[in-house]
Amino acid sequence: MNPEERIELLTKLLEENRFKALREEIIELNEVDISEFIGILPRDKAIIVFRFLPKDLAAEVFSNLEIDIQEKIIHEITDQELGYILDEMFMDDMVDMLEELPAGVVKRVLKNTDEKTRQAINTFLKYPKDSAGSIMTAEYTNLRADMSVKEAIRYLRKNGADSETLYNCYVIDRNRVLDGVITLRTLLLSRDEEMVSDIMEDDVIKVHTSDDKENAAYLFNRYDYLSLPVVDSEDRLVGIITVDDIIDVMEDEATEDFELMAATFPSGKPYLKTPAWELARNRIVWLTVLMISGVITGGILSRYEEAFTAIPLLVTFIPMLTNTGGNAGSQASTLVIRGMVLNEIEMADGLKVLWKEFRVSLIAGLFLAVINYIRLRISYPGQEGIVLVVSLAIFATVIIAKIVGGLLPIIAKVFKADPAIMAAPLITTIVDALSLIIYFLLAGVILNL
Amino acid sequence: MNPEERIELLTKLLEENRFKALREEIIELNEVDISEFIGILPRDKAIIVFRFLPKDLAAEVFSNLEIDIQEKIIHEITDQELGYILDEMFMDDMVDMLEELPAGVVKRVLKNTDEKTRQAINTFLKYPKDSAGSIMTAEYTNLRADMSVKEAIRYLRKNGADSETLYNCYVIDRNRVLDGVITLRTLLLSRDEEMVSDIMEDDVIKVHTSDDKENAAYLFNRYDYLSLPVVDSEDRLVGIITVDDIIDVMEDEATEDFELMAATFPSGKPYLKTPAWELARNRIVWLTVLMISGVITGGILSRYEEAFTAIPLLVTFIPMLTNTGGNAGSQASTLVIRGMVLNEIEMADGLKVLWKEFRVSLIAGLFLAVINYIRLRISYPGQEGIVLVVSLAIFATVIIAKIVGGLLPIIAKVFKADPAIMAAPLITTIVDALSLIIYFLLAGVILNL
Repeated sequence: MNPEERIELLTKLLEENRFKALREEIIELNEVDISEFIGILPRDKAIIVFRFLPKDLAAEVFSNLEIDIQEKIIHEITDQELGYILDEMFMDDMVDMLEELPAGVVKRVLKNTDEKTRQAINTFLKYPKDSAGSIMTAEYTNLRADMSVKEAIRYLRKNGADSETLYNCYVIDRNRVLDGVITLRTLLLSRDEEMVSDIMEDDVIKVHTSDDKENAAYLFNRYDYLSLPVVDSEDRLVGIITVDDIIDVMEDEATEDFELMAATFPSGKPYLKTPAWELARNRIVWLTVLMISGVITGGILSRYEEAFTAIPLLVTFIPMLTNTGGNAGSQASTLVIRGMVLNEIEMADGLKVLWKEFRVSLIAGLFLAVINYIRLRISYPGQEGIVLVVSLAIFATVIIAKIVGGLLPIIAKVFKADPAIMAAPLITTIVDALSLIIYFLLAGVILNL
Repeated sequence: MNPEERIELLTKLLEENRFKALREEIIELNEVDISEFIGILPRDKAIIVFRFLPKDLAAEVFSNLEIDIQEKIIHEITDQELGYILDEMFMDDMVDMLEELPAGVVKRVLKNTDEKTRQAINTFLKYPKDSAGSIMTAEYTNLRADMSVKEAIRYLRKNGADSETLYNCYVIDRNRVLDGVITLRTLLLSRDEEMVSDIMEDDVIKVHTSDDKENAAYLFNRYDYLSLPVVDSEDRLVGIITVDDIIDVMEDEATEDFELMAATFPSGKPYLKTPAWELARNRIVWLTVLMISGVITGGILSRYEEAFTAIPLLVTFIPMLTNTGGNAGSQASTLVIRGMVLNEIEMADGLKVLWKEFRVSLIAGLFLAVINYIRLRISYPGQEGIVLVVSLAIFATVIIAKIVGGLLPIIAKVFKADPAIMAAPLITTIVDALSLIIYFLLAGVILNL
């Protein structure tokens, strides 16, 4: 059965109030699929279905639900049921939820957790938004260096149930300072009598609670990790980040870059779930800034009013010229921005980028100028002068556009701004002004205006 | 010691020919860091350092090296050394390497693998470029359903060394048909005497060798998997995909989208390693297409030559108007394209997108028109007519731009094209033409031209 058929069957069973059959079908599903099904139901039906779930599954499904349904469910269930769910939830999921719930609901949630969890939650809630601390979880596995492999495996089998992952085990000393890491794979493939201290990796790659979560993502990608330890300022282990959360970070960062590069403030929400006024608000600031910087291009054009009143044909080529410049520039800036995000291009590479874009622009500019020259000579016979002006302007514009596009992201980084703002919209506006100046200067010289 | 200091120290030791100290420092490092160090060395030094490495580490480091150094090393080492490295390499890494090596070197590599590996390589090399088959590896762990937990753990400890991951174990029947999956976590947390068949998950989520690798990435992200089984047309297990490879797929797909959305053909190589002529080639096609489509805007403008010769001031506002339209349109198209990539927006959502963009454009368009009206009334006293034309044109342009930008990616998908081509460059060109028509129509009516 494919997912659509499954959802159809479940909906049918629910409509016909065939709850027993529904329950049997549902508990066969993966918790992610159950959450999705509950998510598309009307709220009252959602609660009914949620209450069908066996305790353990309910706790798992709850973590995957969206915040508005979580809130509704918290309202509907007893303190005891809530306590059970909270007990089973991982710290990172709980913190995510608490950050979005209204204060009254948060109170009820905290009331139903034990003292220790409550303290941990309060610490976790204080980590800055984009920090490693904000995405870590507290449920990790720790071993002692003086355990044998046999003891370690026995320990994990007995105590591992609450950990988010068993696959990387962290070795800590009496003060909780991180001493080493050992993978479950290494443990299993070693002989029973070997000592954890002998086979663990002591040069542990880790992040600090206040490190940027993008840095954590970079380390995961570089070293192919499944989890990464997070330590506090005294090098004490306080949590771990798991690869599934890092995948979310990577997707979110990419989405944010796409949004920034299209001159939109990131919303952090799926498009269809973002209200129209919020989408509009996120877009208006940049639109306004870019519109007003049109004053500059307008100013340049009005200086050349005489030129284009004398030869109105000159106006005809303006959009083609400025668009080509904008496109050429944003090709360069996009590649450089992406290269910087992937740590392939660093600030020190400015000259290399300059040299590369210069060569690329010579090739591309020459090609476009020639194509353009041929086309215009055919379309506008007898207008050699104008055709030459337009073609030379295209050539010069492409060169300037690619150099500006290649360098501005790096310059932004030097000034500690996000290179992603130096994308198509801003580059286009800058290149517009430059290309118009070149165009009319060339027209002035070649056409004697 | 931070990474930079470490590389400095290693370089110093190498320069001073202090090989013993160098070796001691190097073998303490993670294989990824060693590969990076070798990668920045001149080729002759790279070989020297590589030969220092103990056999096992050498094999791990080899997988992480770039293709040109791999090729160089293959030339330099003996058949026996090569055989050992190949034996230790995972199938996916080996296939990646073979796809890029020159034919002569491939021959030597294949000569040094055993018959079974050679056959497997040949099958793997045949999977289409973006398929799940092309990124899978053959080194997975399989269990039998009739094993007890105790037997299964013992089996893994004895036979797991060659598997890329032990953490998801696949249960297959006598015909290698996939029967179930069990995580190592579940195994360890279950009692010794339980049977694999009772605790495994039988509803296995899997991909087919010919499925798109993006689909595999989607499943990883949805279900938070660490690995995913790949089956052939008869449902037989042929390989697995691991999460580290999927992270690469996700980064590559995002990079490809960034490139496409900036009107560049994806190069698949880091920017600084792509030759200038190749970058130019990747960019020229779209630049040319977009430049030539400037014929249309040019044609529209030349139809209104009389209008702007009569009132040259009209020309001054053209770049601002077309840029605002381009920006407004590409904001919408970028968000919709990204939403489609993340499976948040589907083809069936066309009407929802239309309605949302219509509302967003009303808000944004009205805001921009008012700001513009106020600014121009101050800057151009006595030109009420033109100010009104420009402001109304901005309003109409934003509405049209957002609707075009929101819908075209969905329409592209309907025609089975990649929605990413409907990004800023193309949208800008389309919106340019529409906004100029509106502008001069309004000018004609309001200014009686």
